[in-house]
Amino acid sequence: MIIILKKNLSASAVDTIVEKLKSMQLEAVPQWVDEHIHLAIVRGEMEQVSFHELAKFPEVEKVLPCTSQFKLSSKTFKPTPTVIEIKGQKIGDGSCIMMAGPCSIESEQQIHEIAALVAKSGAQVLRGGAFKPRTSPYQFQGLGEAGLRYMRTAADANDLLAISEVMDVRDVSLVGEYVDIIQVGARNMQNFSLLKELGTIPKPVMLKRGLCATYMEWLMAAEYIASCGNNNIMLCERGIRTFETYTRNTLDLAAVPVLKDLTHFPVIVDPSHGTGLRALVAPMSYAAAAIGADGLMIEVHTNPDQSISDAKQAIHPKTFAKIVKKVQAIKVIE
Amino acid sequence: MIIILKKNLSASAVDTIVEKLKSMQLEAVPQWVDEHIHLAIVRGEMEQVSFHELAKFPEVEKVLPCTSQFKLSSKTFKPTPTVIEIKGQKIGDGSCIMMAGPCSIESEQQIHEIAALVAKSGAQVLRGGAFKPRTSPYQFQGLGEAGLRYMRTAADANDLLAISEVMDVRDVSLVGEYVDIIQVGARNMQNFSLLKELGTIPKPVMLKRGLCATYMEWLMAAEYIASCGNNNIMLCERGIRTFETYTRNTLDLAAVPVLKDLTHFPVIVDPSHGTGLRALVAPMSYAAAAIGADGLMIEVHTNPDQSISDAKQAIHPKTFAKIVKKVQAIKVIE
Amino acid sequence: MIIILKKNLSASAVDTIVEKLKSMQLEAVPQWVDEHIHLAIVRGEMEQVSFHELAKFPEVEKVLPCTSQFKLSSKTFKPTPTVIEIKGQKIGDGSCIMMAGPCSIESEQQIHEIAALVAKSGAQVLRGGAFKPRTSPYQFQGLGEAGLRYMRTAADANDLLAISEVMDVRDVSLVGEYVDIIQVGARNMQNFSLLKELGTIPKPVMLKRGLCATYMEWLMAAEYIASCGNNNIMLCERGIRTFETYTRNTLDLAAVPVLKDLTHFPVIVDPSHGTGLRALVAPMSYAAAAIGADGLMIEVHTNPDQSISDAKQAIHPKTFAKIVKKVQAIKVIE
Amino acid sequence: MIIILKKNLSASAVDTIVEKLKSMQLEAVPQWVDEHIHLAIVRGEMEQVSFHELAKFPEVEKVLPCTSQFKLSSKTFKPTPTVIEIKGQKIGDGSCIMMAGPCSIESEQQIHEIAALVAKSGAQVLRGGAFKPRTSPYQFQGLGEAGLRYMRTAADANDLLAISEVMDVRDVSLVGEYVDIIQVGARNMQNFSLLKELGTIPKPVMLKRGLCATYMEWLMAAEYIASCGNNNIMLCERGIRTFETYTRNTLDLAAVPVLKDLTHFPVIVDPSHGTGLRALVAPMSYAAAAIGADGLMIEVHTNPDQSISDAKQAIHPKTFAKIVKKVQAIKVIE
Repeated sequence: MIIILKKNLSASAVDTIVEKLKSMQLEAVPQWVDEHIHLAIVRGEMEQVSFHELAKFPEVEKVLPCTSQFKLSSKTFKPTPTVIEIKGQKIGDGSCIMMAGPCSIESEQQIHEIAALVAKSGAQVLRGGAFKPRTSPYQFQGLGEAGLRYMRTAADANDLLAISEVMDVRDVSLVGEYVDIIQVGARNMQNFSLLKELGTIPKPVMLKRGLCATYMEWLMAAEYIASCGNNNIMLCERGIRTFETYTRNTLDLAAVPVLKDLTHFPVIVDPSHGTGLRALVAPMSYAAAAIGADGLMIEVHTNPDQSISDAKQAIHPKTFAKIVKKVQAIKVIE
Repeated sequence: MIIILKKNLSASAVDTIVEKLKSMQLEAVPQWVDEHIHLAIVRGEMEQVSFHELAKFPEVEKVLPCTSQFKLSSKTFKPTPTVIEIKGQKIGDGSCIMMAGPCSIESEQQIHEIAALVAKSGAQVLRGGAFKPRTSPYQFQGLGEAGLRYMRTAADANDLLAISEVMDVRDVSLVGEYVDIIQVGARNMQNFSLLKELGTIPKPVMLKRGLCATYMEWLMAAEYIASCGNNNIMLCERGIRTFETYTRNTLDLAAVPVLKDLTHFPVIVDPSHGTGLRALVAPMSYAAAAIGADGLMIEVHTNPDQSISDAKQAIHPKTFAKIVKKVQAIKVIE
Repeated sequence: MIIILKKNLSASAVDTIVEKLKSMQLEAVPQWVDEHIHLAIVRGEMEQVSFHELAKFPEVEKVLPCTSQFKLSSKTFKPTPTVIEIKGQKIGDGSCIMMAGPCSIESEQQIHEIAALVAKSGAQVLRGGAFKPRTSPYQFQGLGEAGLRYMRTAADANDLLAISEVMDVRDVSLVGEYVDIIQVGARNMQNFSLLKELGTIPKPVMLKRGLCATYMEWLMAAEYIASCGNNNIMLCERGIRTFETYTRNTLDLAAVPVLKDLTHFPVIVDPSHGTGLRALVAPMSYAAAAIGADGLMIEVHTNPDQSISDAKQAIHPKTFAKIVKKVQAIKVIE
Repeated sequence: MIIILKKNLSASAVDTIVEKLKSMQLEAVPQWVDEHIHLAIVRGEMEQVSFHELAKFPEVEKVLPCTSQFKLSSKTFKPTPTVIEIKGQKIGDGSCIMMAGPCSIESEQQIHEIAALVAKSGAQVLRGGAFKPRTSPYQFQGLGEAGLRYMRTAADANDLLAISEVMDVRDVSLVGEYVDIIQVGARNMQNFSLLKELGTIPKPVMLKRGLCATYMEWLMAAEYIASCGNNNIMLCERGIRTFETYTRNTLDLAAVPVLKDLTHFPVIVDPSHGTGLRALVAPMSYAAAAIGADGLMIEVHTNPDQSISDAKQAIHPKTFAKIVKKVQAIKVIE
């Protein structure tokens, strides 16, 4: 249930109605939408409350049903797209933000070199893993905090934002100190403890789709974050697992228009993990731009074949520069 | 193994070498590529033949290994894209052919009305089912030959080509009389009897991907047709089955660049079956155009909700007209 | 809708009511169940007919709704299991019929040798492919009619029934002359022309599940056969395609209890194709027996590694003999 | 690489060789196998070490290659099955351990009541969730520590072991205080931080298969635990996600013989989550027993339809009692 309050109510009037709802065993979460406050009822014995009764409250303009399980993430609650603004850079405003960088941060020199090149080619965000979720415990697990430090200086030196993954709930504040966007990887999409923790911090989160998650499960994972208070969420389609083995994953581009219909959060596409093959990154980026993605996350390496991880899908900075240009050309077509 | 013959050999010289190979228990299929004849060795005891020995034949320029199981369909055999020309209309030449029409041919009037509208909106090919593969034996099975007759006159009246599906090997010549392109549906992708029969007729064939076929199986199905003599083949990506139930299928756009790398046949995309949802047809068409599809097949109905079959995915002719325009704008971006 | 007629009605009384229903635009299919005739209404404008009105007919005992799309295959129509009897051998009576033999019939000698061994080990049915659905047109396509002839004599010499696959609708009567059960392979599960043709002949049919068919689609495929008049149908679970690549397919044993709840047809399990690995055939056979399978179909070869097709999954006759014994022991546990 | 040391070496001799390997940049993990110590080389520049050289060490009996990525979990390292013994109860010794209880611990009374009933019916382990991984943040999240306390007293009162899930790395020691086996749920199978933490505690762990994990990924997840020092690991097959929607998941019983061939850890089967349907729990349990499962985990509730979570798959204690009997009968068949 979504309760739309009358225009320009005072903060104390809003508090009053939230308290009144509490006394009826209903937990309400407020959200500004234009000049109105919307209240989502996220918990409570809704079947015992009459719409009619609520609609008669003097502060209430109207009451809408909200049948979806995800409330704060739904378009019913917030019909306008969420635009996330970080240091002046907007995500979700109709443009296509370009996130680029190596799979893993391998050394200080490497991340500085790549940061300079992707910045020059048109990236706004530097990506790079410091804590790496590797299938085997014997594979390179990332440089940890040192990696984050190198990344921060590389990003700052090139006027880029920084994004990196957090895997351990105990590292959330550490990672948050260094990056502008915290990434939740596919394997942790339903790590509910981690999601709840990320809901309590004032940092944008990019939530990757699980390897076999449905749209609904993915949105419910976003709802975990939102229900703890953090509304700066991006969703990132990165391919699902199917029986096709030629590609690493099957990139499900339908996710973009479907999610943009169901939720107000921006939707990013990762064609690198989504295909696993270097030659497919450019064409898939164009397709993602054409279908309306709010951003692209691409693995770029100065020496792709020497990348410590995911070598087969990394592209050269020159290819990235070419992609940026064509993506921009596609984005302006009406 | 692919044997490239010297330039400008006479037909009888080619015959001579084919006979020589036959005496070595090797079956060769010839193909013109620029000024050369390429011979694909499709059957035989290849492990007992020395490359070296073959390379010494006076007619032979060079011998290439062909490790893929699909021979005639491979880029090794024919490196240049196959352009299929039907009544002056080209498919595979870099443009994006638009195939549109109802799921089922429902009546003479219906197909004429829709044909006129899609022609006006920019379609080159009229689609419509006369023999319908329905999950239930109690569902509408199509108008059969009468439907094909209505379709032919509707196509001719609007200067359109016609495409329709054949399901029964005994109907191949009948369907071939009425349409310009014969479609093999997803459920029949590995109906090998049907594929062999289609290999013997002088009609272009559009082969849809099976619901859970890999790229390799799909190309081997095309090879069944090609190995019987018909090289006018289009491949049509129409979505695969995954665990995601929000959409009818998961449209796998990576198929387009992958196939265009592996084979010389044109690749068409069907966003109607590929998503099953009307609202996704336009965005997915743009993505398909951006990723390099050679054509689109779209279900169009004057009264989409009243469509006898697949009502949820049919779009209105006006939406189709809008799609054609934006697809053309995307196609010209360098 | 299922109409249960009163006990012991005369044939002419049944005809009368079928005609009466026809005049109401309802097509009815009769089936004996104990002393009653059940009529399934398979086509017609059911929403315009009142249950109440039909229940008042003097011949009618009661009228049941039948909400499932499959009518003749449903337990509502025929609550008792269908027992198929062929030359005295029963399938579906609670026992576990053992079908065994080579993937392909390779020669007269081979099929005779294997037939003798599997008969001795406890098989009741000889399997073997004469028309082979191969992914590649260049692979061995089977011995055709000669293979069927060898198989028939081998089966007769060892007092076995024979089962073999038909792929081409034009071969149905040919195959029917030689074998006792006609198999429809996974790739042809939705070859509706073939299913309809098999509905018109007096031979039991074993319908394999498609590689990515749901239970509902599979039952609707059976309904195609039943709706054309042939009720001697077995369903064969042979594994579905998943992302797991260690095994050839994922054998879905839940299919056995689910189907036995939804339909009256016997359910067979094929652990050879269902796993693709020799070492898994025995354990999976025991699991299938424990879950209630009405039969097992197993690939047996005297020299498994030399099998022309599917060598990795064929087992030796000695292993087969061991399986038969343990399967029988499991079957008798209450 | 696995290094098998000579019989009955002293602890100091083993230390010496481990140190020697360390000086060669090789990290070795020891394991008793019969009278020998096996050393798995889990990290290091193996390509620069000669087998020959190692084989000449006086303490070494022989050196085996270990090509699999999972080392400590492999049969090469430890050819005999791992038998986990907890308070006298053995898991992995050829018997089939029965774990039963409610999906969620709902109250002190509920868990005591069910514990008594399942103990009487033949269970050895009490299951029940205190921390619940729920798709929605608004669903019941479990009773937390109070639930664990109720569970412990209920288990003790009925002479049962207790198993419960941990979701948060910060709760590992808390959960470990109350239960005998710690469960890692499907959604956390690749929560590598959690796995590493569980590797450091002296408690057996049951690792459920991820919803779309391959056998290899699952074994690598087990290797994360083992590589941190905890070898008391059970693997639990609980169904994978496929396109079939009739059942909640597709229970992949081939996992049992495959894993028992690749690893020495016991394999448990969960037919409740594996099918999601009450009617399938008993037949699937029989199949699991017949294929060689080392245990079953089953959701039992005194009032199945009133279960707070997973109501559709919970069975009544009477059904459970029946399952125990038939499972035991199947287990003794040779």
